[in-house]
Amino acid sequence: MKTAAIVGASGYTGRELLRLLAQHPHLRASVVMTARPGATPEAPTFPNDPTIDALDLERLRAVDGVFLCTPHGAASEIARAALAMGKQVVDLSADFRLRDPQVYARTYGSAHPAPELLQQAVYGLTEHARAAVQGARLVANPGCYPTSVLLPVLPLLQNGLLQKGAPIIADSKSGTSGAGKAPSERTHFGSVHENFCAYGVGTHRHAPEIQQELGVEGLVFTPHLLPVFRGILSTIYVTPAAGVTVAAIRECLQARYAQEPFVKVYSKGLPELSCVQRTNQCHIATAGSGPLVVLVAAIDNLVKGASGQALQNMNLMLSLPETAGLQEGLS
Amino acid sequence: MKTAAIVGASGYTGRELLRLLAQHPHLRASVVMTARPGATPEAPTFPNDPTIDALDLERLRAVDGVFLCTPHGAASEIARAALAMGKQVVDLSADFRLRDPQVYARTYGSAHPAPELLQQAVYGLTEHARAAVQGARLVANPGCYPTSVLLPVLPLLQNGLLQKGAPIIADSKSGTSGAGKAPSERTHFGSVHENFCAYGVGTHRHAPEIQQELGVEGLVFTPHLLPVFRGILSTIYVTPAAGVTVAAIRECLQARYAQEPFVKVYSKGLPELSCVQRTNQCHIATAGSGPLVVLVAAIDNLVKGASGQALQNMNLMLSLPETAGLQEGLS
Amino acid sequence: MKTAAIVGASGYTGRELLRLLAQHPHLRASVVMTARPGATPEAPTFPNDPTIDALDLERLRAVDGVFLCTPHGAASEIARAALAMGKQVVDLSADFRLRDPQVYARTYGSAHPAPELLQQAVYGLTEHARAAVQGARLVANPGCYPTSVLLPVLPLLQNGLLQKGAPIIADSKSGTSGAGKAPSERTHFGSVHENFCAYGVGTHRHAPEIQQELGVEGLVFTPHLLPVFRGILSTIYVTPAAGVTVAAIRECLQARYAQEPFVKVYSKGLPELSCVQRTNQCHIATAGSGPLVVLVAAIDNLVKGASGQALQNMNLMLSLPETAGLQEGLS
Amino acid sequence: MKTAAIVGASGYTGRELLRLLAQHPHLRASVVMTARPGATPEAPTFPNDPTIDALDLERLRAVDGVFLCTPHGAASEIARAALAMGKQVVDLSADFRLRDPQVYARTYGSAHPAPELLQQAVYGLTEHARAAVQGARLVANPGCYPTSVLLPVLPLLQNGLLQKGAPIIADSKSGTSGAGKAPSERTHFGSVHENFCAYGVGTHRHAPEIQQELGVEGLVFTPHLLPVFRGILSTIYVTPAAGVTVAAIRECLQARYAQEPFVKVYSKGLPELSCVQRTNQCHIATAGSGPLVVLVAAIDNLVKGASGQALQNMNLMLSLPETAGLQEGLS
Repeated sequence: MKTAAIVGASGYTGRELLRLLAQHPHLRASVVMTARPGATPEAPTFPNDPTIDALDLERLRAVDGVFLCTPHGAASEIARAALAMGKQVVDLSADFRLRDPQVYARTYGSAHPAPELLQQAVYGLTEHARAAVQGARLVANPGCYPTSVLLPVLPLLQNGLLQKGAPIIADSKSGTSGAGKAPSERTHFGSVHENFCAYGVGTHRHAPEIQQELGVEGLVFTPHLLPVFRGILSTIYVTPAAGVTVAAIRECLQARYAQEPFVKVYSKGLPELSCVQRTNQCHIATAGSGPLVVLVAAIDNLVKGASGQALQNMNLMLSLPETAGLQEGLS
Repeated sequence: MKTAAIVGASGYTGRELLRLLAQHPHLRASVVMTARPGATPEAPTFPNDPTIDALDLERLRAVDGVFLCTPHGAASEIARAALAMGKQVVDLSADFRLRDPQVYARTYGSAHPAPELLQQAVYGLTEHARAAVQGARLVANPGCYPTSVLLPVLPLLQNGLLQKGAPIIADSKSGTSGAGKAPSERTHFGSVHENFCAYGVGTHRHAPEIQQELGVEGLVFTPHLLPVFRGILSTIYVTPAAGVTVAAIRECLQARYAQEPFVKVYSKGLPELSCVQRTNQCHIATAGSGPLVVLVAAIDNLVKGASGQALQNMNLMLSLPETAGLQEGLS
Repeated sequence: MKTAAIVGASGYTGRELLRLLAQHPHLRASVVMTARPGATPEAPTFPNDPTIDALDLERLRAVDGVFLCTPHGAASEIARAALAMGKQVVDLSADFRLRDPQVYARTYGSAHPAPELLQQAVYGLTEHARAAVQGARLVANPGCYPTSVLLPVLPLLQNGLLQKGAPIIADSKSGTSGAGKAPSERTHFGSVHENFCAYGVGTHRHAPEIQQELGVEGLVFTPHLLPVFRGILSTIYVTPAAGVTVAAIRECLQARYAQEPFVKVYSKGLPELSCVQRTNQCHIATAGSGPLVVLVAAIDNLVKGASGQALQNMNLMLSLPETAGLQEGLS
Repeated sequence: MKTAAIVGASGYTGRELLRLLAQHPHLRASVVMTARPGATPEAPTFPNDPTIDALDLERLRAVDGVFLCTPHGAASEIARAALAMGKQVVDLSADFRLRDPQVYARTYGSAHPAPELLQQAVYGLTEHARAAVQGARLVANPGCYPTSVLLPVLPLLQNGLLQKGAPIIADSKSGTSGAGKAPSERTHFGSVHENFCAYGVGTHRHAPEIQQELGVEGLVFTPHLLPVFRGILSTIYVTPAAGVTVAAIRECLQARYAQEPFVKVYSKGLPELSCVQRTNQCHIATAGSGPLVVLVAAIDNLVKGASGQALQNMNLMLSLPETAGLQEGLS
């Protein structure tokens, strides 16, 4: 049995890790701490939850791996300490996702807090970085929206199936858990229920991340807020290269992901949030519509879009079976 | 006080008309009937609702205008009878929206039930057909999705602001009331709640209607089902012609709709469903995102997308003030 | 046309008053202010909403009536100023509901801020205080839960239909708008959606208010939080006096409220929230169950439970028709 | 590894059993069938779900235990066949819950389909029937509402803590999954969302079941429909015997359930649906309120109220660890 620390355990991604690790056969959460310096221990919200201890970096010495579930900006310092202790670190915040510190500064509004660590950070979209993750000491866990866009689009770019220079449009819809546990006007029940909106059009922080990983220009990204708690569904519009059919695009994706335990490419039908909630799955469907091809991808933003993928990465880093703790059966 | 008949009053659009007419200063619902031949009168679902009488076409002789709130296919025969009595008719079904009976047959799966009436039917997107509606005897009330797409896009096409031949992508999200009052697996609470899905990608019946009214090729239309009851939000992606800025697109829309009581073009911010629910408003915002311009349009599918626009049209046909019964104040 | 001021217009009850007054034929909101001293004007949340001005008590001189939509404790000082100007005041906060300042202090945790005004305050459960309200200068608008409990129970006590000394149990369920517009952990979307809970069992602040108005001992009041925005449904369990049947209880209520425009007593069926949402109605049903009689009462907590009843009271105080601005037709 | 059959697997309780068995270390679903004679196999709704085979009673010979997830009335014949094969049967329908066939006939409107089996059926409220369940061949799995009422009330009756003859009032609120998977007007999204209602006051079929198990007169049971999918919260009002305090009632429950893995009695705070969803737990709190004691009990109606308790019973019948497959960690 190996051990992990969860720093920032009082938020939604921290609690989701606790939920997953409770069923993990080889890894358990032996250190569960808040990420706020000086904060006192927190009693659990639910009767079965553990107490969340005060922050004490020294306790990280005792564990094998460290999950950072902090807001962006707060992870860097803890990562630096844990790496100095020789620990494997998976950072669920945005601190190490953008390779260029100037893009980070422009996107997050302040200088990068640990630019010296950027070089060693591996962008952990597991299915596209498995070998690098296995050897990594620091994994930047991908954002939830980027995961839902990159998994369906990357193989098409890699195989030259898309028309060069044409825009790639990601119309993404997320549940409110993506906005975190802290109450806000935006996530007040009276603001979300029986409502729906777009936000951050052309300005969302996940756009530079998606753009970086796509490696081509032309991304158009529009996030929306759904009145649900869990899940992201991205409807993605791409322009096939001359002569490329919908069938060719589907076959490319099916071939690419045939051996992947957590990606399923549909032959017919369309994924819904309910197909993937509480699982580490990404489900993808393809359809032709006028001159474009439509890709529909669904994930649980707290699992494949956050804590599940983080655990998938940590499993690899600690030489555990990649799917351990993530085989949840039915959604 | 003029009088109207509502045929098909037991569905959501019929009940919405009752709600609107209850506050109308110049028009009242004097005949309220089911559209199902042979059906017995229905007791009201809610204590304040009127009884819905059995179908009796002869009673239409007594009214000034007739609203048809029937399923598609069922409206034609009633329309024929009402027109023969010299009544003004607004049909909320799809029977008279498509000008070409062959497109109708292809889209709805059976021959058009009244092709001889198609010529006189006016497509009642009020802001773009006001004069024709005023003189019409038969108005085809637009579909809910088409209303949300045509209002923001038509002025851009008419003013040559869009790149010719580029796709026009409408990613539309609707509340469940668009699927009607009859229970189904798709609209079962357990299927909709905490869920979200796309459906009818490349095959939805509203696509030919939008295509017809746009008058250009290249529409890509993807409807989605939201876990809300009222409202449609369409996120629309268009390619500006060379040299056309987002500001130019916004100014075009603002100029076009400056005098319209029911269309509002934002200078900043984005519309949400809650801005338009229970109103006859269409709210539109514009934003640049990469190489494209994003239009966000919100309506209440039961009001501007159905019964409100139907009343707006009937007001014009009966020479009543266009906004009568539709000035609802705050949403 | 008479004029009213709304002080505290940025909350849910203030906005609801704006919505109602927008349709009022004889009263308009000419002064719309925040209740927070020193707060700057607030831009409207929704495009059609008015700007909310900074607090300026001098502006109250110009209006006929004053609505106070403030938190408890904050209304007293403004009420004192408005009364000194000779204005009619309806206070939607809890400041003047409890006649005994010691009960207020025990319930709200601080000394009453204006005990000298308590004597002249009329508890404005309109159907049971019409004459007093007409002559009142200061009306304490009832709480939302109390309105839903008192309307069905008071006539039964007044007519001696209940067994003396037996408990009166009110199991009440409210939408989240009752908790106000300020974000909190309790009303975070992630805390309310797909959840349900009881709270304040035996300790809720509305219990002393209900107890005071019932005038008998033995109230058991349990509030619950529903994942809906609008509405309260109270299920009330009473013990009939010897020989009193369910039919007798129903007939008592029907006789008592037969002439009331805003109370409906069912002969069959049960009210649901959807029967009363967005109306000033209280719907009541009765049923026998074992040894007890069950009363089910439904109101919209923002209308009959707050702003609608406040307007009903203000109409009376300003000698306007009692139902003006409140005849909303279908819900 | 032992094997089980699920007959009636296409409904919510059948699917929930599949979800639970997917994680069970000692029992797997080797036969998954519809319960409708003549029905063809059903493709799975979700990608990970198994196909549901046509009904073939002969296949039951191959399994160790049989779960019947059929509507009431349909289970008896299958139970008879399975018992004749010597199988252990857990029936999740209502067929064997009422010991008196006349009460069954009165409650369900038709003669009991297998009265000869009633004698051997054990009412499987596990914590109160453990020994009998272990030796049973046929277990009648309790209804969802009864489970939420009996667990908190039975120990109080058994220990004489309640005033004899006083009513026991259960005000219960259930998510829509209790009404099953078949679409209906009552469970249409547009009927449930932003709504709440009581139903079956004084007439619900679970009242005779609760009454039978309580063994005393005076039950008052009011079910309500919540706009959530999973969960029941029952607020129960009892009259303590002379001199019995709330603390005594809490201590009684805590002592009774101290060793039970699936019942938790709170020392402070109140259970919410979110504390128990997706777990086999029943959480209970106690509070004084006026002259009565309030018990708040929460379960997941599909787990402890149906499939989870069924599995708990089957584990006992097959001599497996009682908690196997039911230790789900965090909700």
